[in-house]
Amino acid sequence: MITIAVDCMGGDVGPVVTMPAAEAFLAGHPQARLLLVGRAEDLHAWSRLTGHERCTVVPASEVVDMSDPIEVALRRKKDSSMRVAVQQVKDGHAQAAVSAGNTGALMAISRYLLKTLDGIERPAIATQMPNARGGATTVLDLGANVDCSAEHLLQFAVMGSALVAAVTGRDDPSVGLLNVGEEVIKGSDVIKQAGQLLRHAAAAGDLNFHGNVEGNDIFKGTTDIVVCDGFVGNVALKASEGVASMIGGFIREEFTRGLWRKLAAVVAMPVLNAIRQRADHRVYNGAALLGLQGLVFKSHGSADAFAFEQALARAYDAASRGLLDNVRQRIARAQPLLSPETTISERGGIPTI
Amino acid sequence: MITIAVDCMGGDVGPVVTMPAAEAFLAGHPQARLLLVGRAEDLHAWSRLTGHERCTVVPASEVVDMSDPIEVALRRKKDSSMRVAVQQVKDGHAQAAVSAGNTGALMAISRYLLKTLDGIERPAIATQMPNARGGATTVLDLGANVDCSAEHLLQFAVMGSALVAAVTGRDDPSVGLLNVGEEVIKGSDVIKQAGQLLRHAAAAGDLNFHGNVEGNDIFKGTTDIVVCDGFVGNVALKASEGVASMIGGFIREEFTRGLWRKLAAVVAMPVLNAIRQRADHRVYNGAALLGLQGLVFKSHGSADAFAFEQALARAYDAASRGLLDNVRQRIARAQPLLSPETTISERGGIPTI
Repeated sequence: MITIAVDCMGGDVGPVVTMPAAEAFLAGHPQARLLLVGRAEDLHAWSRLTGHERCTVVPASEVVDMSDPIEVALRRKKDSSMRVAVQQVKDGHAQAAVSAGNTGALMAISRYLLKTLDGIERPAIATQMPNARGGATTVLDLGANVDCSAEHLLQFAVMGSALVAAVTGRDDPSVGLLNVGEEVIKGSDVIKQAGQLLRHAAAAGDLNFHGNVEGNDIFKGTTDIVVCDGFVGNVALKASEGVASMIGGFIREEFTRGLWRKLAAVVAMPVLNAIRQRADHRVYNGAALLGLQGLVFKSHGSADAFAFEQALARAYDAASRGLLDNVRQRIARAQPLLSPETTISERGGIPTI
Repeated sequence: MITIAVDCMGGDVGPVVTMPAAEAFLAGHPQARLLLVGRAEDLHAWSRLTGHERCTVVPASEVVDMSDPIEVALRRKKDSSMRVAVQQVKDGHAQAAVSAGNTGALMAISRYLLKTLDGIERPAIATQMPNARGGATTVLDLGANVDCSAEHLLQFAVMGSALVAAVTGRDDPSVGLLNVGEEVIKGSDVIKQAGQLLRHAAAAGDLNFHGNVEGNDIFKGTTDIVVCDGFVGNVALKASEGVASMIGGFIREEFTRGLWRKLAAVVAMPVLNAIRQRADHRVYNGAALLGLQGLVFKSHGSADAFAFEQALARAYDAASRGLLDNVRQRIARAQPLLSPETTISERGGIPTI
């Protein structure tokens, strides 16, 4: 049995999405249990779910708003559904927590309650993006860290490898370093230093480092994992969503321009649906907060029930496949590269290992 | 009459693309003259063009390869078609140069020969990306500068405004600062400082600053211009191309799966073509190298004749609409914000203007 703590109040609309998603998830996962965290008065309308034999309601009197500053979420709302959900992981009552709430608040609360793993300075947010190979590319960081050192990027590579290994069962997923060109000499100083650290890690057998990749490689599926700082990752993710949404809009507009085109749309409907399914970002909903002493997953705030169900499934898979142990082991293995004695200092020294 | 110097040897295939593009361009622009720069023996096969009354062949014995390091392009190949084309602008024989060659080499040669404008420390590369409003968003920098200070971002904003004003005729295009959120408190220190400088410039009437924008705003068309450092801009551009290309691949695959779907494709063909046209990045080919004492435009290396023709047209429009003077005037106007006394130093001081 795997138990997931669900922040039922999180996201743009709260229980209206999270409760139907939880119900669908339970039906598809007979080995799962859920802790439904939220205001009892808001949850009891879903009595079929709250009364389910594999569900327990855990009351929490407050809700973190999407616009709450981190300090408010962390210090003022100590009985928020988000915090109580993460607390379930900390107390060992759940193997993972899932929330569609405010990302900054979720990261701050998770970091405060769970603490980072030994050897990790900064947790990262990892998500999957669909690629042309029919699979998904795991990208991190997605916005937890706007400024990153070379060591942070190495830590992201190690954590990303653990995530993909745990989820896919393949032991040696490939890692690309996001850059403005494939050549080793390209990029900023931090990126060049990160490239050296990653090559050292690969030489030591700790990582399967492919080399530099470019923005389009995320969607080509050149590597299993793409590592970047949170600023770049966030822009790449949102720009990609922007393009997909623009093209989707073009398709809708062009297929509804006049009667003849609407008829063409009817004929083409099964094909258009197949295309929509392949580019459906909802399937990839559920970003992992990596580097913490516990599993926390973040759903898009605007997720619908189908998308939120995917985030629950992702958390379930990660917990049942031992993601946390996998991250711990890989970080421990890579520790010599990450420890202060051998890291590249601001002064520019390169470890000679 | 506007004269454009064309690096006919540049790009993945050289004259096979550039010469037909030049011919089509001339036919559509009766007020244009072209200087065709390249190896005479390679160009003479296009005798109808080389003999055109509005064309002059300018011989250049060497070609900068796509893989040439910048030093080779700059110091060893002094008679390259790229360099000779830029030299035509420097010598006043042409109002703009266009090349599809190696970006780094083109920037280095342009900077070396033309020098930067007063008040500009670093030239930037600006391109247009299609947006959902049916127009285009101008984004800079696209890769000339992987590390940028807040002042550089302000300079990019001023130059981008000049570009859009010159090309569209609208005097007050809006500028967005690319960030990981709309709130003023978001982003790295450099971005927050840049936000302050941009607000100062807006208060002084030098800029129409909208505020922070996110990656998806590029494609929503929230602002006319989006400013970012070259690393982020390059990743955003390539990630966007990657998504568009992946979705294009999905559409092709799904519409060719079996006989019935191929028939559906025939019915839907006019609509599919309309969609393709609206998302056709070739229309936006031709990035401006801004901040130099002369106009230089960069075409994609893989441009086909249609795309290269668009780059020629873009250079022609910029030259005929006085882009260079517009940039000069706006930079001079914003000079108090850009001059050493008032810029934010590395020590972190904020001008109190």
